[in-house]
Amino acid sequence: MGSLPLDASVQPLNPETFSGDSRAVVDFLTEYYRDVDKYPVRAADLEPGRLRKLLPEAAPEHGEPMEDVLEDVRRDILPGLTHWQSPSFFAFFPMNASAAGFAGEMLSAGLNVVPFMWAASPAAAELETVVVDWMGRLLGLPQRLLFSGGGGGVLQGSTCEAVVCTLAAARDRALGRLGHENIVKLVVYASDQTHVTFQKGARIVGIPPSNFRVVQTSSASGYGLTADAVRGVVDRDVARGLVPLYLCATVGTTGLGAADPVRELGEVARRHGMWLHVDAAYAGSAAICPEFQGYLDGAELADSVSMNPHKWFLTNADCCCLWVANPRELTSALSTDPEYLKNVGTNGTGTPAAIDYKDWQISLSRRFRAIKLWVVLRRYGAGGLRAHIRRHVAAAKWFERAVAADERFEVVVPRKFSLVCFRLRPSRFVGDDGEAVDAMNRELLAAVNASGQTFVTHFVVDGKFVIRLAVGGAMTEMRHVMDVWELLQGKADDVIHRYQLQG
Amino acid sequence: MGSLPLDASVQPLNPETFSGDSRAVVDFLTEYYRDVDKYPVRAADLEPGRLRKLLPEAAPEHGEPMEDVLEDVRRDILPGLTHWQSPSFFAFFPMNASAAGFAGEMLSAGLNVVPFMWAASPAAAELETVVVDWMGRLLGLPQRLLFSGGGGGVLQGSTCEAVVCTLAAARDRALGRLGHENIVKLVVYASDQTHVTFQKGARIVGIPPSNFRVVQTSSASGYGLTADAVRGVVDRDVARGLVPLYLCATVGTTGLGAADPVRELGEVARRHGMWLHVDAAYAGSAAICPEFQGYLDGAELADSVSMNPHKWFLTNADCCCLWVANPRELTSALSTDPEYLKNVGTNGTGTPAAIDYKDWQISLSRRFRAIKLWVVLRRYGAGGLRAHIRRHVAAAKWFERAVAADERFEVVVPRKFSLVCFRLRPSRFVGDDGEAVDAMNRELLAAVNASGQTFVTHFVVDGKFVIRLAVGGAMTEMRHVMDVWELLQGKADDVIHRYQLQG
Repeated sequence: MGSLPLDASVQPLNPETFSGDSRAVVDFLTEYYRDVDKYPVRAADLEPGRLRKLLPEAAPEHGEPMEDVLEDVRRDILPGLTHWQSPSFFAFFPMNASAAGFAGEMLSAGLNVVPFMWAASPAAAELETVVVDWMGRLLGLPQRLLFSGGGGGVLQGSTCEAVVCTLAAARDRALGRLGHENIVKLVVYASDQTHVTFQKGARIVGIPPSNFRVVQTSSASGYGLTADAVRGVVDRDVARGLVPLYLCATVGTTGLGAADPVRELGEVARRHGMWLHVDAAYAGSAAICPEFQGYLDGAELADSVSMNPHKWFLTNADCCCLWVANPRELTSALSTDPEYLKNVGTNGTGTPAAIDYKDWQISLSRRFRAIKLWVVLRRYGAGGLRAHIRRHVAAAKWFERAVAADERFEVVVPRKFSLVCFRLRPSRFVGDDGEAVDAMNRELLAAVNASGQTFVTHFVVDGKFVIRLAVGGAMTEMRHVMDVWELLQGKADDVIHRYQLQG
Repeated sequence: MGSLPLDASVQPLNPETFSGDSRAVVDFLTEYYRDVDKYPVRAADLEPGRLRKLLPEAAPEHGEPMEDVLEDVRRDILPGLTHWQSPSFFAFFPMNASAAGFAGEMLSAGLNVVPFMWAASPAAAELETVVVDWMGRLLGLPQRLLFSGGGGGVLQGSTCEAVVCTLAAARDRALGRLGHENIVKLVVYASDQTHVTFQKGARIVGIPPSNFRVVQTSSASGYGLTADAVRGVVDRDVARGLVPLYLCATVGTTGLGAADPVRELGEVARRHGMWLHVDAAYAGSAAICPEFQGYLDGAELADSVSMNPHKWFLTNADCCCLWVANPRELTSALSTDPEYLKNVGTNGTGTPAAIDYKDWQISLSRRFRAIKLWVVLRRYGAGGLRAHIRRHVAAAKWFERAVAADERFEVVVPRKFSLVCFRLRPSRFVGDDGEAVDAMNRELLAAVNASGQTFVTHFVVDGKFVIRLAVGGAMTEMRHVMDVWELLQGKADDVIHRYQLQG
């Protein structure tokens, strides 16, 4: 039996090719970061289908050099992107890239191990247990959510995944008592400010859409969900024979940056045996600064807490920390144990020494995200990360003051973190005509975004159109916030002038 | 109002720091690939908790230089990893890294855009529609699964996610007709060879665990699921008033690499209004070669098909292609439309020109995976990728012949792709004592893996312990397969010798 020589034409990990191609991409990205503020921030004015038309119908038959590929990225793709890393991107929430986050991502992608079970890459699983404990401590989370206190954490791809997992755990905890047929009685509670992913997640795990309660908030509580409001809705459901299952408290809502009172809501949840999840996707990062940890007060009443280092914590996408007080509740909803995984001597889930993370998440396969978050924490240190958070909070504070000091504008909700919600409110031109005010704000936002100099998004609360400025980009400095304020003022002049001519 | 200077100590995307740190990691990984065959392939013999003990209890307060971080990776982490990129890794299924996949991952992580809606990064969403069509055509999928034919595709993180999404779509299609209370009547069908993720997925979407049918296969059909077997089980369920919901056909099962007959199963599914999903996670890659496309014959009867470029298609983790025949069924189960996403003028889902991919998956946020798969396809071309597949198939064929020619061994199931399932079968020493044969094979596998020279895993079928050799590593060449065969032969001698002494 002789040796059949394999086709040597593709050598996918030839070290020289690897090094050459990778360096070319590093140079490409270095140039991109240097120039990113020269691109229009938002690319939404493109004609749909533009890129599709530029590209061939089928994959090429023959391989092409990396330079050609990068040239096509430069020519065809970059002009069609919204530049989330632009220092003048203030839309949605930030999605931080950083040198350390990128280095960590490279290590994850390069080693390309799959820590689905402890033994499938022991150091990867253990690093994850260490890093989630580090993060939990930085945020001031109660000991019971950390491995060192009997709870534990996992790194998932998104809050949405974390929500599906915790909803499934809560559901199975309840159905274990009630029987599966009672799935139609389970009710999930959130506020009108809660991220829509909870509604989607509840639907995914089989809760009837009619059993998702959207509890109203108001300006009186700063759009936080009050315990009183939850109690009222829960009592009505219980009287109808329904079963309260799951309550979501948000620290830093997507629309307005509001914060629900975790302790109060936790007490309601306890009384009714509900699972309490605390969603701190965006604002959780701020809790590494002691001055923001008060918002997580009461987290010891939570069954689970999540936050996204990939938003405002310098960790390139994707990375979501999920902590649970009782890992067994999570793993009993999500574990699997087929023969083809019995290849490695894991000692089971539930001990920080040897975790099978496949039982803590939806997917079996998973990336080595822990090394990314670990590199971020090592490279910047807690002190550097606090400085990163505080410089954005300071810039947002400056912006809020500037808006408040300009009589043409109003701040709609007091800023808590780095998100400022404001609008044009030139009462002497449009009086109390809400529709006219909204129309002016729509015009203002459209004009600002059409300039290409920034990208800012909106929200609607109590029927009012509100402009959101979310400070937090990795390259965003005070001067970018000052620039966008100058731009807003100029465009506001134009809009008001047009209304004056009409009026 | 003056300018408050921001703290300049952390400059997360300073181009010089970015370039320096990134080049250091490229050099680190280049060295890693050069030396990867010097590490013990499997790290499972470590004491659990080893790394946890080495690391401090808390994140550092001050940032540290990248060299220190990389030195710690080298010293503390690498020895604790199982080296999935070793050319002698034959365990589970391959998890390909490549220079192109890595370059694509770097572009994705570096640009760090979030194409959850078309307008949140138009070119990223459009590139995804192009790349999934390219892939579908390479695999010879029917037109109706491609955007160009009214269907369409999406890149997710894993088959598990894809399965949850298709199960939710199938469930909601059925419940729309039956009412939500009938969720307890829905039944999901799979074979005893189907990946456990279907069982987990069905549970996640709220199907009662008792409604998951594991239909038996046998050696007579090469462990493929026969239509007859499915019909029998379905008829019994229907007679009991249950509702057949979803049937999974696998092309290339995890344990044995078996292939279910897609067309036959599709016809059964059609007759009962079931959703047919074709899971080609591993073997789908082979379908870029015309000689393997027959296994997907009948895919025009499928509601959805998935395969993982992150396994055997040179695309670093993670990347799973999911195609659906009717995107509206997927999006009606998964779409959301809150105010804070109405910031960009998308023209809705369902046209390839402007897709809101958030409605095609679990998560709202998502990575720019399309650029990774696109770089792989551009850099290697269809021809290069076929050569990559064929060299592994040729090596597996060589190994299978070698095993068959050695009277101490037997091939347990005929090889279809690049997975060979075999075992020691020295009948003249142990006769028909199944337990003794299993014990010898366990010993053989343990000895081979303990050598550190390779990592091979097992499976159990019909009560028999079977060794699996999955060829497909990016660096795996014929010589590595020959080496592992030599190692197996040597260790087999030792095992047999011990049994001779005992007997």
